[in-house]
Amino acid sequence: MKLIDGNAIAKSIIEELTTEVSRLKDGRPVVAFIRVGEDPASISYVRKKQKTAEQIGIESRLFLLPEDVSKTALFEQIDVLNCDPSVNGILIQAPLPKHIDETETFNRVVPHKDVDGFNTVNIGKLCQEDTKGFVACTPAGIIELIQRSNISTEGKHVVVLGRSLIVGKPAALLMLRKAVPGNATVTICHSRTTNLENITQQADILIAAIGRANFVTADMVKEGVAVIDVGINRVEDSSRSRGYRLVGDVDFAQVSKKASLITPVPGGVGPMTVAMLMHNTLRAYQEVHST
Amino acid sequence: MKLIDGNAIAKSIIEELTTEVSRLKDGRPVVAFIRVGEDPASISYVRKKQKTAEQIGIESRLFLLPEDVSKTALFEQIDVLNCDPSVNGILIQAPLPKHIDETETFNRVVPHKDVDGFNTVNIGKLCQEDTKGFVACTPAGIIELIQRSNISTEGKHVVVLGRSLIVGKPAALLMLRKAVPGNATVTICHSRTTNLENITQQADILIAAIGRANFVTADMVKEGVAVIDVGINRVEDSSRSRGYRLVGDVDFAQVSKKASLITPVPGGVGPMTVAMLMHNTLRAYQEVHST
Repeated sequence: MKLIDGNAIAKSIIEELTTEVSRLKDGRPVVAFIRVGEDPASISYVRKKQKTAEQIGIESRLFLLPEDVSKTALFEQIDVLNCDPSVNGILIQAPLPKHIDETETFNRVVPHKDVDGFNTVNIGKLCQEDTKGFVACTPAGIIELIQRSNISTEGKHVVVLGRSLIVGKPAALLMLRKAVPGNATVTICHSRTTNLENITQQADILIAAIGRANFVTADMVKEGVAVIDVGINRVEDSSRSRGYRLVGDVDFAQVSKKASLITPVPGGVGPMTVAMLMHNTLRAYQEVHST
Repeated sequence: MKLIDGNAIAKSIIEELTTEVSRLKDGRPVVAFIRVGEDPASISYVRKKQKTAEQIGIESRLFLLPEDVSKTALFEQIDVLNCDPSVNGILIQAPLPKHIDETETFNRVVPHKDVDGFNTVNIGKLCQEDTKGFVACTPAGIIELIQRSNISTEGKHVVVLGRSLIVGKPAALLMLRKAVPGNATVTICHSRTTNLENITQQADILIAAIGRANFVTADMVKEGVAVIDVGINRVEDSSRSRGYRLVGDVDFAQVSKKASLITPVPGGVGPMTVAMLMHNTLRAYQEVHST
């Protein structure tokens, strides 16, 4: 078994991006973050993204709106950033307060600044294999992990657990593309799948994104499988000062004995998402400055 | 074995649409066809669509452009129809001449008049399970065939042969939806798939859309499978006056002996596409007139 070290791979990407940004001649990329309310996890995520941006040389601008912000006021803020030619990427930190529709909000961002890849147009482009669209950061990170670990996907059977719009579906579409990585036979499983283990046992590559702690057990996979574990679940652990530890959707201790390659949790897919956000921001900048 | 009679099902849909249109109080739907050049197949398809529209009470308007039309002139024609409030649906008959990019052309049609469902926004909406988008007519027809034949899909294993943007991918996305039909476990296979028969043998429902005559043989499927054959292929046949006959991607003679339900070719999926185009046109009309 070989560990897929997401921290190390993300670090390489961040270093590559730093070099690329340092070579830019006319300014540097700008990413705008909109955070609504004071959710502690959101504060922490946005801070992490800002820190990584700074490290790379990407300018970040933070816009804070109150929890009770009206949809109109939020959309006005988005519109201002849409129209500001100095802003290359716009990220609206989820989750949003319940009175604001997330899909509608993500669609308010103009597609060419939608570095989160949540806009309907960017999702459509992914389906069309139009590489000019932005791919959502988690599935984009999965693809980078696979590529940089030299996992061959052509003709392989990729089984995706989970059909979410954020991970499962885009990951499946990416593995289907006529590209490298890609050209895989893809099966998508979910909560309604019957005889799940019959299918997961066929996987050459298993992508687990269902949000259930230690759900995939060793008897569900075949010897030599490559495993990408997207889950980040809290389980009680009184031995930790914070009272819990983070585990994936895959029972790492047992499955890692059969797997040829496997991502740990934490330290697998997680670190990749911020790196891919920065990758998308630089691409958004380059799109504008190459024309 | 029971035959899925696409002609009969399409006829039912057309009758339902005729009733619905006859009940409209303030006018009737209008679909605009743009045909470029004099391709005999295109002439025949557009004529068939016009005839069905007329039968339902949908007004059709035909715009003929020469084979050497410039992109600018074609796009101007599309723009005029986009802006014309009396036009509900716009269909640009494919194939287009080689000097005109089809994806760019389909994207010129405003999403709410894109009754063909080829616009990036409508493809994205399909992925997002946003039912307000238009689904391309062939995959929409497949879903209707499945639903009206009372084929249960929940938890079933649907195997899709083919990953095209026109059929394979949207059919897979539709079968994945949290809906009826939908909630299926979905595998997508294609030219790069290895051990194809191992996968097709698992299919409870097999959707074949690869364009290879009689490709799916009886040994590739299990007893009781439901088969939707999207292929329309010409094979030489000197006993026919035209010198060929049409066959599907499935070896009907042999596979029909094992299948519980199967579509014939012709008379299966084919007749459904025109019916679904009319369905989409009426929906486009209703969207405008309900607001």
